Amino acid sequence: MSSKITALKDAVRNIPDFPKPGIQFKDITPILGQAHLFQEAVEQLTFPYQPGDIDVVVGIDARGFIFAAAAALHLKTGFVPIRKKGKLPYQTHEEQYDLEYGSNEMAIHTDAIPKGSRTLLMDDLLATGGTAGAAVRLLNKLEVNLLEAVFLVELDALRGRDLLPEIPVRSIISF
Amino acid sequence: MSSKITALKDAVRNIPDFPKPGIQFKDITPILGQAHLFQEAVEQLTFPYQPGDIDVVVGIDARGFIFAAAAALHLKTGFVPIRKKGKLPYQTHEEQYDLEYGSNEMAIHTDAIPKGSRTLLMDDLLATGGTAGAAVRLLNKLEVNLLEAVFLVELDALRGRDLLPEIPVRSIISF
Repeated sequence: MSSKITALKDAVRNIPDFPKPGIQFKDITPILGQAHLFQEAVEQLTFPYQPGDIDVVVGIDARGFIFAAAAALHLKTGFVPIRKKGKLPYQTHEEQYDLEYGSNEMAIHTDAIPKGSRTLLMDDLLATGGTAGAAVRLLNKLEVNLLEAVFLVELDALRGRDLLPEIPVRSIISF
Repeated sequence: MSSKITALKDAVRNIPDFPKPGIQFKDITPILGQAHLFQEAVEQLTFPYQPGDIDVVVGIDARGFIFAAAAALHLKTGFVPIRKKGKLPYQTHEEQYDLEYGSNEMAIHTDAIPKGSRTLLMDDLLATGGTAGAAVRLLNKLEVNLLEAVFLVELDALRGRDLLPEIPVRSIISF
């Protein structure tokens, strides 16, 4: 692991029992708050792409917006949000995913991305893969050219990438 | 109004009766999704600052994250989120603000920003000013040097800037 990635990993703060007992929450705000670490995270997430390689970066509500928006600026692309159902104001496609108890729905505007656009999907965390899987299904409905799903942090034990078999999955830091 | 700002304003999509009857929702996703408009929005929001002028850009959950994160990358600063109560995992300061019916609370990590840091507050929309006012009070608790609150869209009739009397307020587009 390179020293740059070690510096990112060392900045992640472990918060025990958040949001509920037994969960070890990975707090990435110390990366965001330090200019050099935030820039390094965006560099790593967008590697090896250059401006002109990508048309759209898609971010998942809400922390995914942070990295995807910065990546979109870095790569000179558009930015498209995937949000919880009911948050986007125009016509949407919707996809359900399972939670521990019950389910939830993610949405994307039906006109968000032209067919065939070279697209990156980005989020801060790959855990169980539920939201990311729903996001991939939404992007498939729009018939984009989904090149990769990229995450700052991956929790290996939860095997979230098993829910994303059809696309390349990359993460910068894993626990 | 410059032609660049006219182009941004023309891209805002009006959605009648969202999220409830009688509200004319200003949908900014067409700006986000078009690379040249997204870049122009970030240029306008960060004008006239250069890298080195600012220490931290603060964004308000969730659409504020989009612009504040891109602005932080552009100005080579850290990014700090202000979120609804219960979303941030570490110790927080909290501030209440009034809604039409009831109230809500915003939070910031107590260690998010060193005292005296040159700080910009950024959000997509200045409407009633409730969330922005709470955000300013949170930043005052951290004793930052809050230089300006900047918004992509301002709804003039709602007089949100009246709730922000102590700091310079700037918006790029107004309706």
